Amino acid sequence: MRRFYAPNVALGPHELGAEESRHLGQVLRAKPGDTIELADGRGAVFPAEVVSLGKREALLQVGSPECHPEPSPHLTLWVAPTKHTDRFEWFLEKACECGVSRIQPIWTMRSERRVQKPERWQRTLAEAMKQSRRAWLPELLPAASLQDALRTLYEMKDRPWLGLAHCPVPEHPNWERQNIKQAMPVGQDVLIAIGPEGDFTPAEIEAFSEAHFTPVTFGEHRLRTETAALYAVQAFQILNAP
Amino acid sequence: MRRFYAPNVALGPHELGAEESRHLGQVLRAKPGDTIELADGRGAVFPAEVVSLGKREALLQVGSPECHPEPSPHLTLWVAPTKHTDRFEWFLEKACECGVSRIQPIWTMRSERRVQKPERWQRTLAEAMKQSRRAWLPELLPAASLQDALRTLYEMKDRPWLGLAHCPVPEHPNWERQNIKQAMPVGQDVLIAIGPEGDFTPAEIEAFSEAHFTPVTFGEHRLRTETAALYAVQAFQILNAP
Repeated sequence: MRRFYAPNVALGPHELGAEESRHLGQVLRAKPGDTIELADGRGAVFPAEVVSLGKREALLQVGSPECHPEPSPHLTLWVAPTKHTDRFEWFLEKACECGVSRIQPIWTMRSERRVQKPERWQRTLAEAMKQSRRAWLPELLPAASLQDALRTLYEMKDRPWLGLAHCPVPEHPNWERQNIKQAMPVGQDVLIAIGPEGDFTPAEIEAFSEAHFTPVTFGEHRLRTETAALYAVQAFQILNAP
Repeated sequence: MRRFYAPNVALGPHELGAEESRHLGQVLRAKPGDTIELADGRGAVFPAEVVSLGKREALLQVGSPECHPEPSPHLTLWVAPTKHTDRFEWFLEKACECGVSRIQPIWTMRSERRVQKPERWQRTLAEAMKQSRRAWLPELLPAASLQDALRTLYEMKDRPWLGLAHCPVPEHPNWERQNIKQAMPVGQDVLIAIGPEGDFTPAEIEAFSEAHFTPVTFGEHRLRTETAALYAVQAFQILNAP
């Protein structure tokens, strides 16, 4: 059944937004009496019957939702947006399909992109959520400097396990990178930071070290930022699979 | 050091092709005396000194190669090219970065794309090989019908382990899909077939069953064809990691 994203849906009559109404009527050619699904992105999926359908508005009658528990454990990724935004958007789509919980874009010293596109990125995630029939929309946090992101960690009560990937740290004292398979604990919340195209600076690596990140590797070859970020998501899923 | 793809390179003088010569001179602004690397895509990486540089030709002096053993075990993927070729090309880039050995595009009953672009796809793979600093170029086989592809399996002496993924087979008798993590043997050559956007037909699934494919799943959510195909590559790498 066709699924739509409706963050504010509740039982009873519901008016679909202009864009989704147009999609429902003109692309899918729905008619009154047809049934669709509305996902609120926080686990509830509601059946909804089309009552009436205009060019820019669709009225629905919403029934009782099916509730899906939040996937657990959680994976949070810190990723420096890539120079070409399509590579970052590609990553958002795939990370959502594959079950990431939270993404925070971070600005690093060597980030080549400095502009965030939260609305566009949010739409990419919502599309991927519908397409992959997930009930939970990954949380997209506002972009933050690496310093600010690290500061929030220090304020956390229950810190996730912290991994630092896609980052050359061969000469850092006391640091030996482990393969993600050995390093990452299974069944625990995890946060993995992915280096930018130009790598983290030595000072940034020092800051990660002080915050007790574990350096991990995904193998001996050089991966693009967005490939490494998706690798982290898939490694997390595969290692946590039953 | 900057790496180029040169399938026919050998010790001694070597002339780079027009496109790569232009890239070397005009984009990278190389000068006589500079050193680059030439990878033949079959494990040998040669140091090469720029001797002279014209607009469309570069003459190099090639030294003794460093030889990298072929990665093992091998992963072969059968994938139905997606309707939009950019999604398939994206998959080729990522699969090469992540270490696939062989890719065969297959035509299925419900394939939405029927045109292959072998030269363009080959270039995508070569670019990704250089970028990820791999010494082995994945083999791109000519597209084949599923029937013909299955026939080649029957003629093989040492068959790889066979997995069938991204395919709804809930009602097939005696078939129960296992998570790839349980199903896939570690340390063995593997071939995984990925369903097209419109799924395999019941007759195609029957043919896979007769050929002793094991149905596997990558989790409960619906993945796009290219996402599932990359998931297979990353699962293979992660499960075979030391």
